[in-house]
Amino acid sequence: MAPVEIINKLVSLAKRRGFIFQSSEIYGGLKSAYDYGPLGTELKRNIAQEWWRTMVTEREDVVGIDASILMHPAVWKASGHLAGFSDPLVDCMNCKERFRADKAPRAAPGSEVTYVKGGKSGGEKLTGRVPEGGYVCPQCGSPVLSDERQFNLMFRTSIGPVDPIESIVNHLIDFKGDRRALREKVEAVVKESAIYLRPETAQAMFVQFLNVQQTMSMKVPFGIAQQGKSFRNEITTEKFIFRTCEFEQMEMEFFVEPGSQKEWLDYWCRLRLEWWKRFANNKDKFRLRQHAADELAHYADDCYDIEYEYPWGWDELEGVASRTDYDLKRHEEDSGTKLSYFDQQKADPTTGKQGWRYTPYVIEPAAGLTRAVLVYLVDAYSEESGVDAEGGEKTRVLLKLSPRLAPIKAAVLPLVKKDGLPDVARKIVEQFYAAGISASYDEQQSIGKRYARHDEIGTPYCLTVDHQTISDNMVTIRDRDTTRQERIAVDQAIETVRARIAGS
Amino acid sequence: MAPVEIINKLVSLAKRRGFIFQSSEIYGGLKSAYDYGPLGTELKRNIAQEWWRTMVTEREDVVGIDASILMHPAVWKASGHLAGFSDPLVDCMNCKERFRADKAPRAAPGSEVTYVKGGKSGGEKLTGRVPEGGYVCPQCGSPVLSDERQFNLMFRTSIGPVDPIESIVNHLIDFKGDRRALREKVEAVVKESAIYLRPETAQAMFVQFLNVQQTMSMKVPFGIAQQGKSFRNEITTEKFIFRTCEFEQMEMEFFVEPGSQKEWLDYWCRLRLEWWKRFANNKDKFRLRQHAADELAHYADDCYDIEYEYPWGWDELEGVASRTDYDLKRHEEDSGTKLSYFDQQKADPTTGKQGWRYTPYVIEPAAGLTRAVLVYLVDAYSEESGVDAEGGEKTRVLLKLSPRLAPIKAAVLPLVKKDGLPDVARKIVEQFYAAGISASYDEQQSIGKRYARHDEIGTPYCLTVDHQTISDNMVTIRDRDTTRQERIAVDQAIETVRARIAGS
Repeated sequence: MAPVEIINKLVSLAKRRGFIFQSSEIYGGLKSAYDYGPLGTELKRNIAQEWWRTMVTEREDVVGIDASILMHPAVWKASGHLAGFSDPLVDCMNCKERFRADKAPRAAPGSEVTYVKGGKSGGEKLTGRVPEGGYVCPQCGSPVLSDERQFNLMFRTSIGPVDPIESIVNHLIDFKGDRRALREKVEAVVKESAIYLRPETAQAMFVQFLNVQQTMSMKVPFGIAQQGKSFRNEITTEKFIFRTCEFEQMEMEFFVEPGSQKEWLDYWCRLRLEWWKRFANNKDKFRLRQHAADELAHYADDCYDIEYEYPWGWDELEGVASRTDYDLKRHEEDSGTKLSYFDQQKADPTTGKQGWRYTPYVIEPAAGLTRAVLVYLVDAYSEESGVDAEGGEKTRVLLKLSPRLAPIKAAVLPLVKKDGLPDVARKIVEQFYAAGISASYDEQQSIGKRYARHDEIGTPYCLTVDHQTISDNMVTIRDRDTTRQERIAVDQAIETVRARIAGS
Repeated sequence: MAPVEIINKLVSLAKRRGFIFQSSEIYGGLKSAYDYGPLGTELKRNIAQEWWRTMVTEREDVVGIDASILMHPAVWKASGHLAGFSDPLVDCMNCKERFRADKAPRAAPGSEVTYVKGGKSGGEKLTGRVPEGGYVCPQCGSPVLSDERQFNLMFRTSIGPVDPIESIVNHLIDFKGDRRALREKVEAVVKESAIYLRPETAQAMFVQFLNVQQTMSMKVPFGIAQQGKSFRNEITTEKFIFRTCEFEQMEMEFFVEPGSQKEWLDYWCRLRLEWWKRFANNKDKFRLRQHAADELAHYADDCYDIEYEYPWGWDELEGVASRTDYDLKRHEEDSGTKLSYFDQQKADPTTGKQGWRYTPYVIEPAAGLTRAVLVYLVDAYSEESGVDAEGGEKTRVLLKLSPRLAPIKAAVLPLVKKDGLPDVARKIVEQFYAAGISASYDEQQSIGKRYARHDEIGTPYCLTVDHQTISDNMVTIRDRDTTRQERIAVDQAIETVRARIAGS
């Protein structure tokens, strides 16, 4: 299948079967924002739950937090997000498009290019020379561009009883001055009450490092994990849910002794890669890629991306960064609170004396939850050609989701809508509900169509109640991937499904 | 215990034991924002999980969604939040305090009051007359106040590649006009890119009503449930996590046939009240209170609050509202998309013909997750007086959390830190990890101090490994509430704890 084709098919399936809808669709949608429908919500919850289980519940050395999205603005000053977290934006003077300079089509500076006046088809043809930046407008190809300016990616809002509009009016009604003075005035007024939506969950773990370490008596090495939403006012949003302005992260900051960061980076790279593969059909579509020196963020001494081979090629899925002691040091400096760790058992390497106080180094495995949904949908989407009841060709579409991730674990289907079969089936599905297992009762249309529906949404097990069930108290369990059917006792249904999920 | 005392004790315990920290604490905190620490996060997750299980997993007629926090601004115009979702604010002309008119101290209009100039103690005494509004400044008692003005509670931000500050500067650099014209200009510029953080999760269920109903083939009556964060720029934040600007909701919109809303309102009031009591020790502290006619929102034809007796008295915990067809009708009108339901089986009551198309009525049980954390902490906090080993008086502080909600289900404790006991204990705790049960290994300090620590954080079961364990492969299980101890087989430990949790 062509890359575009599979994404288009997935978008369509996701919409049609209740996985992912466009946000505010009845109002024409909001740019690159998505709502997770009933099945997408369960899929996302299951992925999040598996991550939490692996990273927190099963580990003595990692604890979770859940911090607020709105944080003190000083956090973003210390972290560098207020100053440096920006994209270079340029305006096209010809067609008025605003675009990211670093994503624009490259062209040799000084070379001649032709473009159409105003960017409108049929307009006057013009020629011009590519400026020093070495790029042209992605919309109309014009080289007549504004200067680059920085555009901060954080969403800004304001808190407190002051409406910034009113403050601006109060301050500007008698304003006299030039453009620069005006800009400074407006910025100062806005800044008074400005707060930001967090662009990453990580900073909360640094800011709460001491509270967590002390209240939980954690000993280095230990980690703080968090799942939650982050927000970036991305100029270029793309590829379905791959890059969106609102997204969900699963991040963990693992605090280690200085000098041991290389060893722990290796450890976490290996574990995280294994984790992604555990739920995938095509395990060779995941790989580790080390950052080149010129790719590294200024605070990192090493970094790996866990990449996935998306329909458009290898691209990022999770970053595992060795962040040194940069973040704790920055927050220590700006807050005046000492963010260090004292190890009574170790000797200080400089003095040789017993007891070592140091700022821990940090390894950060940072994954995207919304991106995980996309990856596992791409991994699961399959088409199998077969033959229908009349001997004609047909295609079976199925989502080969890991049973642990599948939104619905078991569908309970009465073969026909009569002869008491629905009652028996309902009793079975209610046992699943009572056991807290996501299950579905479905009696509409032929059994073949119901199997097809559940294949398409990834339900791993279909339990069919037929006439024989009444006499022998057994049902058919059908496996989604093999379509093989077996008979099992009704009172073994829950345990069978539970065991197969656990063993998957 | 006095009301203030118990809240103060809880705030202190929550901070000291890793339940709830002030957000951005090292930077002086952010007004009324909180971060959930390791134990608070697990408690909050467990409450959310129980709600989801009861409201979604166990029900055939309710499905979940997870919508984006940023929605199209037209949603808030249709819902009425842009126009009507505001508090009346007033400025004190004497001490400059800005406050909510409806929360200010009442005084008879025209009556004489005295206050201190500038609100500073020792200042000149002044007298004045209470204005028509019938209230004075809550800070200094002055009756010299500004007019009331509306302050919208939604957090506003902007999306897209345009920085509103730059737009304002561009539009105002040559501005000429009066104050009113200036305000209109600034408002118009800001509005171009304005979006809002959702002030409730409910609207997404109305906006996605059709997508969910159609893709999941839902038949009325059915519900759409959602958990997630909402944001209100509250002027009056209060009482720890009771009212905060950022909070988490658990809402469900249940769509019913017109005329059946009374019956379904009763049904959901009963179920929700039962749900709250299920996890509580003091079940008589929950009650239903019907709204008086003058309390009802304009769109509601009936509403109940589920109230809890907080330390400060009865106050809101969950609202169960009968919202009529107001919301679907409003979104239908503004979006131009028909948001109705067709029931083939029913006759249209007006024409008598088979097949009835109608706009469903809605029953909404809307609970606060962050408020639930507070309620169950208050409910669980207990002090028992007893006698210590030396015969002195001592107080046992314990959190009697439902085992289903407790952050840590089992603590595994070697009696001493030698003789191989730690190894045995570690093997047991690892079995809990592998089973996905939140457990803790703890070997620091005396066994009595460890019991006390786990009582204080609500761990329902402590498993102690002693010397006898080595020979008989049995451990002591201690019950938090009764402090009673029994010996159980090590290989029954997980099943015992699991069964006790399930049976609780």
